[in-house]
Amino acid sequence: MSPQRDQQMAAGAMPEQLGVGMRLSVHPHCDDFEEVILGALADVIGAGLSDDLLVETDEVSTYVGARTELAEERLAAFASALIAAAFRRCGAGHVVAHILLSRGCPGEASCHLDVAGLPETASVALEPTGIRAAAQWSLYPLLDGGSGQGDHMVHIEAAIAAAQARGVAACANHYATKLTGDLAEVLATVVDAWAQVGAVVPHVVTHLTVSVGSPSPAESRGRPAL
Amino acid sequence: MSPQRDQQMAAGAMPEQLGVGMRLSVHPHCDDFEEVILGALADVIGAGLSDDLLVETDEVSTYVGARTELAEERLAAFASALIAAAFRRCGAGHVVAHILLSRGCPGEASCHLDVAGLPETASVALEPTGIRAAAQWSLYPLLDGGSGQGDHMVHIEAAIAAAQARGVAACANHYATKLTGDLAEVLATVVDAWAQVGAVVPHVVTHLTVSVGSPSPAESRGRPAL
Repeated sequence: MSPQRDQQMAAGAMPEQLGVGMRLSVHPHCDDFEEVILGALADVIGAGLSDDLLVETDEVSTYVGARTELAEERLAAFASALIAAAFRRCGAGHVVAHILLSRGCPGEASCHLDVAGLPETASVALEPTGIRAAAQWSLYPLLDGGSGQGDHMVHIEAAIAAAQARGVAACANHYATKLTGDLAEVLATVVDAWAQVGAVVPHVVTHLTVSVGSPSPAESRGRPAL
Repeated sequence: MSPQRDQQMAAGAMPEQLGVGMRLSVHPHCDDFEEVILGALADVIGAGLSDDLLVETDEVSTYVGARTELAEERLAAFASALIAAAFRRCGAGHVVAHILLSRGCPGEASCHLDVAGLPETASVALEPTGIRAAAQWSLYPLLDGGSGQGDHMVHIEAAIAAAQARGVAACANHYATKLTGDLAEVLATVVDAWAQVGAVVPHVVTHLTVSVGSPSPAESRGRPAL
């Protein structure tokens, strides 16, 4: 057993016990989207970024489950590399990815945890990609009545403040916070926020729609004339 | 004031007060994706489906806010028609949409509601599209500690049972429920579940990734060999 694993077990439950993982889908906006997606997946697997992750692709998206130490960093690195590879493979074209990160609901339809404690997680460290991303991000601490974990908006507001301090949070949109910056930094911001709330609230989910290579201007295109 | 509106005000807060609306993004997997998206949007607006909705497009997605009676049905009809139009315009090709539906957080970063009560909402009625959709769906009742609204999984399990009774819920995936069926019926199922939880819990969000025209087989493609 590695020292890292020793440390994590001392601090709380293991990623697999907590159901730490994500669903993601990658959408290249090009005719040869199948080759782009399969090629990008091969790139990421070939680079060893799926090691220690469980990867299952279905008709709608891909599930990536974390089973070992450094769970959050492995998930973030996998997503960053996959989106960057798809972007390169479609000629720096428009690629959108949707990511759902979840923790605390290992049983899919039930989230009654039987674990010793919630782990503190170190911030993830990712190589910059050199690719500008624009994203919309929502964070859901799933509190229950009488749990004493307080107001869900308190956790969300703290996460947005942390993103602003990193220089990644651009502005509030309806139902989401807009994030801009290097693709890797956008992903690291979201994963860190999700893991940090997860040290206090057992079941935490976050959703991110991330866009690279968009032909739309960086500013809002405004309201269409209706 | 219409009789419908009279009835809704008597039953509780108006959609605009509750912040009833959605963000959606549509992803045609084809080289001429811009023409497809703009054309589909023009089709939907031309058909009058954006009447009484506030539509704002930005760099990442489109916000659609409901302001009047029949809010849920208007949102569902808009989304169904937009995805169907994009599917037709890219030659029955592969189109994925991501939809976030939200209610109970009108202030974007604050969700302290000042309303008389939560409305009961009638089920939405949509015309079938004739297009098979496969989707992954997650529902988040955002309860707070001490609110007495119970266990968030109770609401989620009831919503899944309702989807199963409609014949739309295919199976549980990690972090999501798979739905299959006519595009309109999939959307109606999700919107109805979200509105029904919204009659009890003030702040409710649901996310849906919906795919049409996918080249992937309907069965899981299984685990890639890693």
